[in-house]
Amino acid sequence: MTENWLTQVKWNADGLVPAIAQQYDSGKILMMAWMNREALIATIDEERTVYYSRSRKKLWRKGEESGHIQTLKELRIDCDRDAVLMKVDQHGGIACHTGRHSCFYTRYQDGEWHEDEAVLKDASEIYRAKS
Amino acid sequence: MTENWLTQVKWNADGLVPAIAQQYDSGKILMMAWMNREALIATIDEERTVYYSRSRKKLWRKGEESGHIQTLKELRIDCDRDAVLMKVDQHGGIACHTGRHSCFYTRYQDGEWHEDEAVLKDASEIYRAKS
Repeated sequence: MTENWLTQVKWNADGLVPAIAQQYDSGKILMMAWMNREALIATIDEERTVYYSRSRKKLWRKGEESGHIQTLKELRIDCDRDAVLMKVDQHGGIACHTGRHSCFYTRYQDGEWHEDEAVLKDASEIYRAKS
Repeated sequence: MTENWLTQVKWNADGLVPAIAQQYDSGKILMMAWMNREALIATIDEERTVYYSRSRKKLWRKGEESGHIQTLKELRIDCDRDAVLMKVDQHGGIACHTGRHSCFYTRYQDGEWHEDEAVLKDASEIYRAKS
């Protein structure tokens, strides 16, 4: 009964839902990643975003290596209950592993992709501490 | 060569990518749906969002029944090239089939989901024309 909210989530065949992270004050979309049941529970419990890494096949506490954690401000689900939207505060202002504010730094224009967002910090510098 | 931008998109096993629609001026997230190759091309060509309906297994020109189309302002892709973000203008101010502005009208709080966004138009009224 206490986990009724969790059973209402419509996980896909792999047990995942897409999760969108939005900077709570600016409205900027930072990234989209995936969560399994355990990641969603951890996100709520720890009040920071915890995703499921499909490549590493394990929980990914956003910022665990870079320090660029995302504090959870609000968590929403859509009408179909198969996508999650989180308002977050992005620590360090860098959500992307490339050192940019947002992962969506590439814009379509005239049949080509154009990168139009600045690299704020070099990736080698971001991950230096743990490498 | 002219379709090089399209080959760079990383479609999932079903040939789809998640597509997020964001109201261009307010920054509000309206919905998340899916696109196949054909839907993405149509979205760009027609300058309005065209999704792929996984339940109906066909292209879904957003607003084709309701009139609530989404004019495309900007199209972006993320660093992994497996998610798309669109800045749109939501006609009629209603993105959700429930008659609400956004599909993310349900918020998590204290172990429960709470609907906190108003129904602007009754669904029966929205779809009356074609039923």
